[in-house]
Amino acid sequence: MRIARFSLDGNVAFGVVEGEDSQPDSLLIDIIRGIPFAAFERSGTKVPLSKVRLLPPVLPSKVVAIGRNYADHAAELGNEVPDVPFAFFKPSTSVIGPGDRIIHPTFSADVQHEAELAVVIGRLCHQVPRERAHEVILGYTCANDLTARDTQRAEKQWARAKGFDGSCPLGPWVETGLSVEQAGDLAVTCTVNGELRQAGRTSQMVNGILDLIVNVTEAMTLLPGDVILTGTPAGVGPLRAGDEVAVSIEGIGTLTNKVITRD
Amino acid sequence: MRIARFSLDGNVAFGVVEGEDSQPDSLLIDIIRGIPFAAFERSGTKVPLSKVRLLPPVLPSKVVAIGRNYADHAAELGNEVPDVPFAFFKPSTSVIGPGDRIIHPTFSADVQHEAELAVVIGRLCHQVPRERAHEVILGYTCANDLTARDTQRAEKQWARAKGFDGSCPLGPWVETGLSVEQAGDLAVTCTVNGELRQAGRTSQMVNGILDLIVNVTEAMTLLPGDVILTGTPAGVGPLRAGDEVAVSIEGIGTLTNKVITRD
Repeated sequence: MRIARFSLDGNVAFGVVEGEDSQPDSLLIDIIRGIPFAAFERSGTKVPLSKVRLLPPVLPSKVVAIGRNYADHAAELGNEVPDVPFAFFKPSTSVIGPGDRIIHPTFSADVQHEAELAVVIGRLCHQVPRERAHEVILGYTCANDLTARDTQRAEKQWARAKGFDGSCPLGPWVETGLSVEQAGDLAVTCTVNGELRQAGRTSQMVNGILDLIVNVTEAMTLLPGDVILTGTPAGVGPLRAGDEVAVSIEGIGTLTNKVITRD
Repeated sequence: MRIARFSLDGNVAFGVVEGEDSQPDSLLIDIIRGIPFAAFERSGTKVPLSKVRLLPPVLPSKVVAIGRNYADHAAELGNEVPDVPFAFFKPSTSVIGPGDRIIHPTFSADVQHEAELAVVIGRLCHQVPRERAHEVILGYTCANDLTARDTQRAEKQWARAKGFDGSCPLGPWVETGLSVEQAGDLAVTCTVNGELRQAGRTSQMVNGILDLIVNVTEAMTLLPGDVILTGTPAGVGPLRAGDEVAVSIEGIGTLTNKVITRD
């Protein structure tokens, strides 16, 4: 099931996306009563997807991202794969939705795309054992872990380089129908102006989805709507004003954003 | 003015703390109508401070902390002062209040105290010019930037080492009566079981309060209640179960927490 968050005539709601991707004009959103983090009902009131504005599919209190979780990406930046996974945060103020503009930050001359599978957490959890880690997953969405590469090189910790406003596009919706095994073997691509830049598979992750949940929740509580970004494959590169960047993940969808400069 | 957040009989409110520290039993909280981030009124309804449970004085969406902002602390860990300030995040789930127990995390054998001046942001702000940076400050409180030192050494980014649950005690209240100049020259101390461990002055900061606000908001939006931690002076050291750690800042107050282990 695809659960989207959207606004229509100023009202914000969640809904289930129905229809065939091959016929985009046929796609509908069935508005739900309640929230996707608990039992909910479909209202039966359906609106065309083309009539709504999609929003970030969740409102994370925090996004926890994992560095160097694909060996080919670590290598392309001259880094080694770490012995243990390491995590960093992207704050709630970094999250934007599908179609939202990426405002190129003024302090960087080298903002780069990083296409990633995002794990959306469905329930409050802490110190989750591996055998139960699948239970805390609501579903999966696409993420772009935008990175000011020059700032990242200059500053030992990455709060500014990876936490600037708009640095975490998420969407277009949460796909809840994938098993952990399925999510662990999906094609991930990134295009810029239609040109392929990144192409990998989630099976290349050094640390898999369940191990990342164990690692993160060993230290901290995750809340419903929190997100874990699972790392990016090789092919990262710069974005410039006017570029349209699209992250696609097999079985989930495509997250597209355009880069602009603030006047 | 000292603005505290507290609970009494299950109700949560903000209030103004009145009275003389030299007579702790005389301290009262005058409950306010509204929130401290906008115009508010004192209700005139006063309760003894000893009758309430103090809570974290604000609920930050994020805490932005600055690394190595005191030269003597950088040196004691064998590090150099960075050419440019660098920031890291502590998430909302890391915040606890005065008197709350610090639960020693299971993944670390070396949790250390770091006493810090905390700048509490009063309004939504982004790309703040230096000459207006003082306008976004609501006031100041005490913070303990608890750090799993072994994890910090093992993991390149510090989300787990400095973002674990309970790793950001804040309090006891927000002091709104200090000018930026006054806040920039205060004694900061940390004691463990009454023994002095850290003693510095905020005048030793490498980057001052206004410059940190400019640096952080150049990249990201801060929300009312967000907090900037300004770095710690020398003397950091380990905490063990049973220890009582107290951060005191001249003109603000004392933040005390006890360390326990989860059974």
